[in-house]
Amino acid sequence: MSETAPDPNVIRAAGSREIYHPSSDVVDFGHDKPLALDAGIDLAPFRIAYNTYGTLNADKSNAILICHALTGDHYCASPSPITGKPGWWNGLIGEGKPVDLSRYFVICSNVLGGCMGTTGPASIDPESGQPYGIDLPVLTIRDMVRAQKMLVESFGIETLFAVIGGSMGGMQVLQWTVSYPDMVFAAVPIATGARHSSQNIAFHEVGRQAVMADPDWRGGRYYEKGVRPYKGLAVARMTAHVTYLSEQALHRKFGRNLQHGQKLGFKFDAEFQIESYLRHQGSTFVERFDANSYLYMTRAMDYFDIAADYDGLLANAFKGSRTRFCLVSFSSDWLFPTSESRDIVHALNAAAASVSFVEVETDKGHDSFLLDEPDFYRAMEGFLSSAARARGLIA
Amino acid sequence: MSETAPDPNVIRAAGSREIYHPSSDVVDFGHDKPLALDAGIDLAPFRIAYNTYGTLNADKSNAILICHALTGDHYCASPSPITGKPGWWNGLIGEGKPVDLSRYFVICSNVLGGCMGTTGPASIDPESGQPYGIDLPVLTIRDMVRAQKMLVESFGIETLFAVIGGSMGGMQVLQWTVSYPDMVFAAVPIATGARHSSQNIAFHEVGRQAVMADPDWRGGRYYEKGVRPYKGLAVARMTAHVTYLSEQALHRKFGRNLQHGQKLGFKFDAEFQIESYLRHQGSTFVERFDANSYLYMTRAMDYFDIAADYDGLLANAFKGSRTRFCLVSFSSDWLFPTSESRDIVHALNAAAASVSFVEVETDKGHDSFLLDEPDFYRAMEGFLSSAARARGLIA
Repeated sequence: MSETAPDPNVIRAAGSREIYHPSSDVVDFGHDKPLALDAGIDLAPFRIAYNTYGTLNADKSNAILICHALTGDHYCASPSPITGKPGWWNGLIGEGKPVDLSRYFVICSNVLGGCMGTTGPASIDPESGQPYGIDLPVLTIRDMVRAQKMLVESFGIETLFAVIGGSMGGMQVLQWTVSYPDMVFAAVPIATGARHSSQNIAFHEVGRQAVMADPDWRGGRYYEKGVRPYKGLAVARMTAHVTYLSEQALHRKFGRNLQHGQKLGFKFDAEFQIESYLRHQGSTFVERFDANSYLYMTRAMDYFDIAADYDGLLANAFKGSRTRFCLVSFSSDWLFPTSESRDIVHALNAAAASVSFVEVETDKGHDSFLLDEPDFYRAMEGFLSSAARARGLIA
Repeated sequence: MSETAPDPNVIRAAGSREIYHPSSDVVDFGHDKPLALDAGIDLAPFRIAYNTYGTLNADKSNAILICHALTGDHYCASPSPITGKPGWWNGLIGEGKPVDLSRYFVICSNVLGGCMGTTGPASIDPESGQPYGIDLPVLTIRDMVRAQKMLVESFGIETLFAVIGGSMGGMQVLQWTVSYPDMVFAAVPIATGARHSSQNIAFHEVGRQAVMADPDWRGGRYYEKGVRPYKGLAVARMTAHVTYLSEQALHRKFGRNLQHGQKLGFKFDAEFQIESYLRHQGSTFVERFDANSYLYMTRAMDYFDIAADYDGLLANAFKGSRTRFCLVSFSSDWLFPTSESRDIVHALNAAAASVSFVEVETDKGHDSFLLDEPDFYRAMEGFLSSAARARGLIA
């Protein structure tokens, strides 16, 4: 256990394991540039951790902002320093890939409230000298986007060529097109919705309750105690993970296969392969993610409801938009079913916006946006090339 | 905290609240009548708690066995002594109702491994003089049905007119028709499947992990410590509860409605109505249900796979069956979707069994079998009346 106040970038777990080592670029905003949060509080100072890939062109017209999902980070196209795994969107982003790094400049930042270097609940509250814990105000998707805008402007970029993201990342994309429509030339919201559904709030609440039920959560002040709510966070992750897949994918991958041999063991150990798989998902997740950040991320998604600011009329949110939209959904995604993307398409149509829409046929569920789905990649390549021509990035 | 060994029928919770007071009929089986469990162990002695409704006729041909679901009990048509609520199938069972008590004699027992009077993990292990905890062997649906058969035979009943149940109750119905085909004249498996799917095992595993992650679970030996894993069991119940409903039902009932007024509170309290609802479901459940029983019930469902004993060929399980089947599914049930009932219907057809099948249109999800669904009741009334005529119970 650490005796001194912890470094916000290195959280020491029980047993003194150091689990976070963000080594990316950071930009710090001081008291002169506070972030006006939806909660009505100015956050200052604050830090954004980010990575860039490719080269920004001379007139700064080729920048793409990639927005990550609930438990993602800014290592979208380079190995994670935590897990050593390749960038989480390596299939999509790279030279010769749909987000072609020989053509575009990619920015990807850890979201506000995250745990990979951007200011979040594990960061030091300058007033107390202790980690914020849950004293950090509840954050919204709009707050995350506000922070991203400050980052984008720090590059001198006036208009992003594209904003792309899936799930919670897709929510940020939508928020960008509503908050700063003139800064977004093209937008690709993937596997997402314009508001979080009752069922999705329900699953998130179950996860939060699992974290908060863990006595090691300690009202969110576990950092100082040298403990972490591993068990509760693992249960939260396991629940969420089931919702990321589809019944068909689980059946195909695991069925009722047993872990050891053909005979039931009549025990409460992990006997079915699906059980070991879930336990593994839970235990590896807690090594890389902060429980309080999980609370903030899920809450931000639950709060998300674009139409709420427009008397419930989603079309009004997009009125006058000149952004080119491409919506993508996956047929077996039951967390953000195709109907939710279609609702957004209808609203965009009603607002006379430019919109294309692709429903990718797959049995892999919500997680499809992170997987090698050729139809998805083809759609992305086609849409981005067409937008790049319109933007004058290619002849 | 209790200083003496607890009475198996009264579990004292922390703070000495007595939470279980089963007051129904019981039948005790001694060492001369052991229950041969699938785990390869003889269970003796053991007790079954049950209720009966209506009158058994002279030739004992009008008996209906009602099988309860995961967290149900034997109070299907009379108020629960724990909650004071009406019988859980009051809409279906009663004079003039589809299961007409002026015509049929209904038996409903608490399943083996339960916590309402039948031998389960909270019962005293005669060898140790302490509650079994998880030293009781893992139980199967077939074990539950074996115990029910001994209860039915204790009435001198040779053939049940019908066996009826939903969800885990439906699994018991199916097991009855396979284990003791000649004892079942008519069978009504409702909202169930012939095997537990990978996704369903996954959700159960999450629930078990939530219970076991609670430090008050104490490896299953919480009874002696005067504590109970309330928080873990509440999380398990909350997760399960989401799966019992449907996205549409949640949207209709709660949508994104806030608990207090129209403004977001920027807190981690229950702000959305769905959150308070779930927390309420969790906290009331733990007052009436034993955490270890929850582990046993979910495990029994996970183990269920009728075809496994027949080289994976479900039709072979029903070969030569003379039972009349009526399968019922609900269109918005995603835990046991209609396709699972249809698989059973196909197998019964292949086995040349008598089968009818009703898919009830409703948006209320899996829980529909416990709700007032007129189409469901009509189907039940029609099927049972027709079977009663064939059985000579009515002219």
